[in-house]
Amino acid sequence: MTELRYDVLGIGNAIVDVLARAEDDFLLAHDMRKGGMALIDEPRAEAIYAAMGQTVEISGGSAANTIVGVGSFGARAAFVGRVKDDPLGSVFAHDIRAAKVDFDTRPAAEGPATARCFILVTPDGERTMNTYLGAAQDLNPDDIDEEAIAAAAITYLEGYLWDPPEAKNAFLKAAKIAHEAERTVALTLSDAFCVDRWRVEFLELMRSGTVDLVFANEAELKSLYQTADFDTAVKAVRGDAALTVVTRSEQGCLVVSRETTAAVKAVPVGSVVDTTGAGDLFAAGFMVGLARGLPHETAARLGALAAAEVIGHLGARPEKSLDALAREAGLLD
Amino acid sequence: MTELRYDVLGIGNAIVDVLARAEDDFLLAHDMRKGGMALIDEPRAEAIYAAMGQTVEISGGSAANTIVGVGSFGARAAFVGRVKDDPLGSVFAHDIRAAKVDFDTRPAAEGPATARCFILVTPDGERTMNTYLGAAQDLNPDDIDEEAIAAAAITYLEGYLWDPPEAKNAFLKAAKIAHEAERTVALTLSDAFCVDRWRVEFLELMRSGTVDLVFANEAELKSLYQTADFDTAVKAVRGDAALTVVTRSEQGCLVVSRETTAAVKAVPVGSVVDTTGAGDLFAAGFMVGLARGLPHETAARLGALAAAEVIGHLGARPEKSLDALAREAGLLD
Repeated sequence: MTELRYDVLGIGNAIVDVLARAEDDFLLAHDMRKGGMALIDEPRAEAIYAAMGQTVEISGGSAANTIVGVGSFGARAAFVGRVKDDPLGSVFAHDIRAAKVDFDTRPAAEGPATARCFILVTPDGERTMNTYLGAAQDLNPDDIDEEAIAAAAITYLEGYLWDPPEAKNAFLKAAKIAHEAERTVALTLSDAFCVDRWRVEFLELMRSGTVDLVFANEAELKSLYQTADFDTAVKAVRGDAALTVVTRSEQGCLVVSRETTAAVKAVPVGSVVDTTGAGDLFAAGFMVGLARGLPHETAARLGALAAAEVIGHLGARPEKSLDALAREAGLLD
Repeated sequence: MTELRYDVLGIGNAIVDVLARAEDDFLLAHDMRKGGMALIDEPRAEAIYAAMGQTVEISGGSAANTIVGVGSFGARAAFVGRVKDDPLGSVFAHDIRAAKVDFDTRPAAEGPATARCFILVTPDGERTMNTYLGAAQDLNPDDIDEEAIAAAAITYLEGYLWDPPEAKNAFLKAAKIAHEAERTVALTLSDAFCVDRWRVEFLELMRSGTVDLVFANEAELKSLYQTADFDTAVKAVRGDAALTVVTRSEQGCLVVSRETTAAVKAVPVGSVVDTTGAGDLFAAGFMVGLARGLPHETAARLGALAAAEVIGHLGARPEKSLDALAREAGLLD
C-alpha cells in the first residue's frame, strides 16, 4: 500500500474571486439568481465586471477553499486544478501555497485566462456567483498524478467539476485510483443548480459507490431528489450513500449514515459578513476530523468552527489559523 | 474663470494593494519598520510576496483612496495616476471608475508593471507597507490636464509623489495651474519616512505658498520639524501653512489655522481590523466639507466618520456609502 502523504487531496476549478457589495436590485437588474452560481461566457463576464462596484480580489474555487482550510488545520493537503500562466494565475498559486498546500498542476501557457468568479455580496451576507471558467476548463485526466491520489487518505471532488467537459474524466480517473488504493472518495454537490444540471450522473456516482462521502446543503439535497420535503430527501440519501453530511446554515448539520442520523449545532457568529465559503470550510473541518479518526460529531464540530470563521469576513479563505481556533475550542489537541 | 467641474482632483501613485495578515515576528524577520512605508525594488517585491501568507488584492494608493472616498460622499471627483495596461492596471481602473471617479490617465503600454503595495496587517490592525512603484514612476507633467485642474475646487497631492523622479514636476505643474485658476492646493505628508526623505522640499512647498492646506499625522508633523514635542511642531506649522489638519488616531484631530486651533474627537470604532487608509479617508471627508463651505469642525467630523468606516474592515477603500453614513450622522443633508 502506498504510504500516506496527504490527509486530503482536492480536485477542483482553480478560480480567483472578484467580490463586490451590491444591493438586491443589482441582482434583479442583471438577471441573477440570488444565492446561486451561474456559468458565464467572456462577454457576460466583461459586462458584469463593468457594472460591479469597487472590487476585492481573493483566491477562491470551492474545493481550493476547502483544501486551504485543511491546510489551516495543520493537516497535510494537496490541490489539483488548472490556472493560466498569467498574473491572476500567479496570485492563485501563491495563495494556495501560502497555506502550505502542495499545488503542482502545470499552468496553461495558452488559451483562456485564469478563471474568475464575480461574486455579489448583498447586505444580508448572501453571495451570488457568476463564474467564467477560462483556463480551469482545460483540466483533464493527464493532470491526475496517480501516486499523489494513492497517497491521500481522502480525495475530495467538487460537483462543479462536472461542468468543464474533460474534468469529469479527471474526476473518474482519480476516484478509481483512490479506491484501488483503498482510500476514501468524497464529493460535494456544490450548488442546487449544478445538481439540477447533473442529477442523474451524481446519483449514479453515489449508487455505484464511486463516492463514499457526500457533502450537501439543504437546497442541494432537495434538488437531488426533486422534493420540497427535507425528511424525504434525508431518507432517500441514506439509501444512496454510505455517509452524507447535510449542512443547514444556522441550524447546524446532520450526519447521515446507513443506520443513524446525528445532529450537530452551528457555531454562533457575531455578524455574518459574507457567506462565501461556508460550505467549503465546513467540509474542510469534517474531513480533517475524519482523517484523524475522530467521531463524526467531533468532525462536524470542526466543520462548524471553520464555517463560522469564514463567514465573519469577506472572502472564502480563513484569515485565522483554524488549528489554533480548534485547540482553543478544545476540539483538537 | 473655468467652470467648476470637480470638488476634488487627486494626483498620486496608482497602486494595487496586496494584503496579508502577519505576526510582528514576520516584520522583524524581514527587516520591516512597523507602521511605515518602504520603497522596494522588483527582487525584494518578489521575495516579500513569496514569504507572505494568503493575500487579498484591493485597489489602493493613498491619494486614490482619498478620491474614492470623495466620490463615496457623492462629491465630484477625478484622479490622475499611471498604471500599466496589464490585468492589475485594469483592476485599478475598474475600481476607481466604479466609485464614479473620472480617471483618464493613459496607461503605460510598455515598461514596468502596475505598482503594487505589499501590506502586512498585524493583529493590532497596524499596517506595514512595502511599495514597488512600477508603472506609477512614469507619471510626468504631460499627464496633467490643464482644464481639469483649473476646474477642480481642490487639487490634492500626496507627498509620496516626491519619490518617482518625474512626478514632482507633474505636482508642481498642477499646483501652478490650480493657483492661477484661484483654486486650493492640498498636500498630505504621507508618511514620517517620506517626510524624512523630502523635509526641506516639503517645508519649501508650504513656506512658498505652493500648498494651502496640509494633512499630517502626529509622527509626520514631528518628523517635519525634527522634534519629539508635539506642541512645538504644532506651533511651527502654524507659521508655515495657512491651514493644517493633524490627525491623531483615536485622539481625534487638530485643525490649525494662523490664529486658532480646534480639536475634534475621533468617531468610536467597534473593532479596528486594518488601519490602512485611515488618513486617506480622513482627508476625503475634510475636503468634501471644505468644498461644500462647511465649518472646519464639521469638515473634520466628516473626516473622522470616513476614517472610522475604513478601519473597520480590510482594505483602504470604503465599503459603505459615506454619503449615507454622513446623512445618518446628521453631518450632511
